[in-house]
Amino acid sequence: MRAVDLIVKKRNGGELSESEIQFLVKGYTSGAIPDYQVSALLMAIYFGGMNFEETAALTRAMIGSGRTIDLSGISGPFIDKHSTGGVGDKISLLLAPIVAACGVKVPMLCGRGLGHTGGTIDKLESIPGYRTSLSEREIRGILSECGFVFMGQTESIAPADKLLYALRDVTGTVESIPLITASILSKKAAEGSDGFVFDVKAGSGAFMKTEAAAKELAESLVKTTRVLDKKASAVVTAMDEPLGRFVGNLVEVRETVRALLGDIPSDIGEVTYRLGARMLMLAGRAGSIDEGAAACRSVLESGAAYRLFVHNVAAQGGDPDFIAAPEMLEPAPRRFEIKAEKDGWVAGVDAFKIGNAAVLLGAGRAIKESGIAPRAGIELVKKRGEEVERGAVVCSLYCEEGLEADEAAALARAAYTVSDEPPESRRLILYEMEAS
Amino acid sequence: MRAVDLIVKKRNGGELSESEIQFLVKGYTSGAIPDYQVSALLMAIYFGGMNFEETAALTRAMIGSGRTIDLSGISGPFIDKHSTGGVGDKISLLLAPIVAACGVKVPMLCGRGLGHTGGTIDKLESIPGYRTSLSEREIRGILSECGFVFMGQTESIAPADKLLYALRDVTGTVESIPLITASILSKKAAEGSDGFVFDVKAGSGAFMKTEAAAKELAESLVKTTRVLDKKASAVVTAMDEPLGRFVGNLVEVRETVRALLGDIPSDIGEVTYRLGARMLMLAGRAGSIDEGAAACRSVLESGAAYRLFVHNVAAQGGDPDFIAAPEMLEPAPRRFEIKAEKDGWVAGVDAFKIGNAAVLLGAGRAIKESGIAPRAGIELVKKRGEEVERGAVVCSLYCEEGLEADEAAALARAAYTVSDEPPESRRLILYEMEAS
Repeated sequence: MRAVDLIVKKRNGGELSESEIQFLVKGYTSGAIPDYQVSALLMAIYFGGMNFEETAALTRAMIGSGRTIDLSGISGPFIDKHSTGGVGDKISLLLAPIVAACGVKVPMLCGRGLGHTGGTIDKLESIPGYRTSLSEREIRGILSECGFVFMGQTESIAPADKLLYALRDVTGTVESIPLITASILSKKAAEGSDGFVFDVKAGSGAFMKTEAAAKELAESLVKTTRVLDKKASAVVTAMDEPLGRFVGNLVEVRETVRALLGDIPSDIGEVTYRLGARMLMLAGRAGSIDEGAAACRSVLESGAAYRLFVHNVAAQGGDPDFIAAPEMLEPAPRRFEIKAEKDGWVAGVDAFKIGNAAVLLGAGRAIKESGIAPRAGIELVKKRGEEVERGAVVCSLYCEEGLEADEAAALARAAYTVSDEPPESRRLILYEMEAS
Repeated sequence: MRAVDLIVKKRNGGELSESEIQFLVKGYTSGAIPDYQVSALLMAIYFGGMNFEETAALTRAMIGSGRTIDLSGISGPFIDKHSTGGVGDKISLLLAPIVAACGVKVPMLCGRGLGHTGGTIDKLESIPGYRTSLSEREIRGILSECGFVFMGQTESIAPADKLLYALRDVTGTVESIPLITASILSKKAAEGSDGFVFDVKAGSGAFMKTEAAAKELAESLVKTTRVLDKKASAVVTAMDEPLGRFVGNLVEVRETVRALLGDIPSDIGEVTYRLGARMLMLAGRAGSIDEGAAACRSVLESGAAYRLFVHNVAAQGGDPDFIAAPEMLEPAPRRFEIKAEKDGWVAGVDAFKIGNAAVLLGAGRAIKESGIAPRAGIELVKKRGEEVERGAVVCSLYCEEGLEADEAAALARAAYTVSDEPPESRRLILYEMEAS
C-alpha cells in the first residue's frame, strides 16, 4: 500500500477501506507517512467528503492511536453530551450534575476555549484548586462517587487527533464535516460512554454559521456514532446570541451555581432540559422529552443537582466553600458600561462580537498558548426582546486593573441592535435528530 | 500574508494575486513555507483550478526562482516546439533541423523519458559523445552555428518547478491542467523563445488519454503563453498508436536519419510538417499551413535539414560519422518476433502497451534513477490499416544479451488488434488552436 495511491483514490471520488484508513493513520502517527502527503489527503477529503463508514473507520483508527478509559466495574448507563462550542455556553456545568442526579453516569471529556468560544475546562479552573487533569483511577473514583466527572484531554487519548488537528489548522482543512466528526468522536468515544447527545450550535457565535451546516454536522455525528455501535441523538440550538446573561469563566460558574440553586435563565433552562431529556432517553430512563425534562427539572428544584455539583468540586480538588460564598464569585473589579443609544427593544446581541469582546477583556484566548483572566467577563444586562431606554446600561464589561477596554467596548456596543418594535420571539431549538 | 489564508482563499474558489503567488513560490523555495502547506494548496488547485492569469503568475514566479538564458546578440526569431510526450515521438529530432534550415532559430529544452514515454535527451545520448548538459556559452554558440540546440534542464532553470513537481508526484496532484501548464511553461519560457507550438498528444500512449483533456491542456498552454506576452499555437495529435515504425532510442535516431535522408514515414511526415508550418507561421516566415509545410518539405528534400543535423551532432560532442554509418545504428542483438495469430488487418497498435514493452526491454525508465539500454527497442513491422497473414511477423523486439523478454513480448502481443475488415482511416491531427 502506498500513501500516494490512496490520496489519488480519494481525490478521484473513491471510498477508502478500513484497512487503508488504518494504514494512513498508523503511518502518520508513526512518522512513516510524511505530513505533506497527509495534508494533501485532508484537502482531497475536504473536497470529496467521506461517507459514514469511512468517517467511522477514521474515528476508530484515531481512537486506536491511544488509550481508552476503562469504565468496567462501575454501574452505568454512561451517557455524555457534546457541544460544538458557543458563547456563554455553560450548559455542561449544569447538565452533568442534573443528569447524574437522575441516575445516569456522565463521564465528560471537556475542552478549553479557543477564539471567540469559551471552554468548560477554563470555566472550571476559575474555581481555585479545581483539576481536570486526572488519572484513570481518579476518573473512575470521581465518576462512581459523584455520578459525573469533568476531564481534560490527555496525551494518551487519541493522539492521532491532536496531530491531525494541528495539521488541519495550518493547511485550511478544518472546515470538513467528516474530519470534524471523526475528531469529536475519537475523543468522546475514548471515554467509554454508551451514547451521546450532540448539541450542535448554529449562528454567528458558533463554528457552524448556518442552520443547514449545523444540521449536516448533526447528521454526520449521529450516523457515524451509530456505525460505531453507540447510541446518539442531536439537537441543533441557536447560537446567534450568548446563552444566559454572563460570558466569561468565573462569571459563568456563578451563573451556574445560581441556576443550580433555582435561579435559571429561561434560555439556559430550555436547552439544558431538552439535552438532559435526550440523555435520559438514550439511557432508557425516560420515555419522552416531557418525561425526561420533568425529571431534570425535579432534581434541580430539589437541590439534588446542586449538592452533586458541590460534591464534585471537592472531589476534583476545588474548594466547595468558594462556590458557596457569593463574595468570592465577584467579577474582576474594573467595569465599563455600555448604554443604549436610543429607546426601543433589543433586537439582537451578536454572539460572535460578544465572544470576541470577552477574549479582549482576558476571558479567552486568541492563541492556544495564552493564559486567561478567570474573573474577566461580560454581563448582558439586556437581552433580545427586552425593552430599553436611551442611556440605560445594556451590558457591563469586567476586566482586571490596568487593561484598557476600548476595543472590547466598541465590539460589545456593536453587538447590540436596538429596534423601534419588539422583535419576533426567538427559537432556541432549531432541529432535532432522534436516536433510532 | 500567511500561507494558510491563501490556501483557504483558493479552497473557497478565490483567485490568487500575482503577489500572493510570488509569496508562496518564494516562501516554498526558501523553505519558509513548509511542504505540508504547499501540498494542501496544490490539492486545492487540483479541485478549484486556476485561471490563465493565475497560471501565468505561477509560471513567472517559477521562472523567477532561477536563471533564464540570454539570447541577445543572436539573430532571431526564436521559436520552439513542446510535445507533452508519447511513444515513438522522435518529431523534435527532425523538426529542429528542418525549421532551422528554414531560417528560424530553435533553442529546444528537452527532457528524459519517464514511464512509458520516451525522451529526446535519451534518444540523443544514444549517439556516443552527444552532450545536452551545456553551458550558456555553448548554447549560444551551437544555436548561432547550427540554428538549433538541444539542451537538458539545468539546476538553475526554474528550480521551483523541480521542487513542486517532486511534491506533486507524491501527493496525487500531478493531473492538474494549470499546474501542468505552469510546469511546462516555466522551463520553456526560461529558454528565451519568442513563441511556442505545443504538440499536445491524446490517446493511450499520452499523458492526456482523451481528446477533450488534450484540448483543455492545449487551450491552457496557448492562453497562458499569451498572458506571458509570447506567441503560441497548439496542435492536438493522436497518440493511440506509436509514431513511425521504431520505439526506443538508437532505433529512433536511425529512423530520424533515414527520414532526413528522404525516407520519412507518412505519420511522422504529417505531424512534422504541420508543426513545422505552425512554427514558421509564428515566426512570420509563412502565411499559411500549406506554405509552411511546403518550405519544410523542401529543406528536407534538399538535404539542408540533414546537413544541419550532422553539423549539430558534431557541435554537441557527438560523432558525425557514427550516424552516417548504418552498421553503427543497428539495434541490440537479441531479437524476439511477434507473429499475427490470424489473417486480417491491423486495427490498432496500443501505444501505452508498446511504450511499456520498450521500458521492459531496457529502452526506458520505470523510475527516474534507472539507466537505459540505448540499442534496445521495438520495430513495428505492421501498423494500423496494414494487412497481415497468420504467422507473419507484426513486430520485433530488440534487447541486450541476457535479458528475458517474456513480459515485454506478452505486452507487445496484447498491443496488436487484428480484425477481419480494414479499419477506418486514422486522423492524426485532431484539433488545432490558432495563434491570435
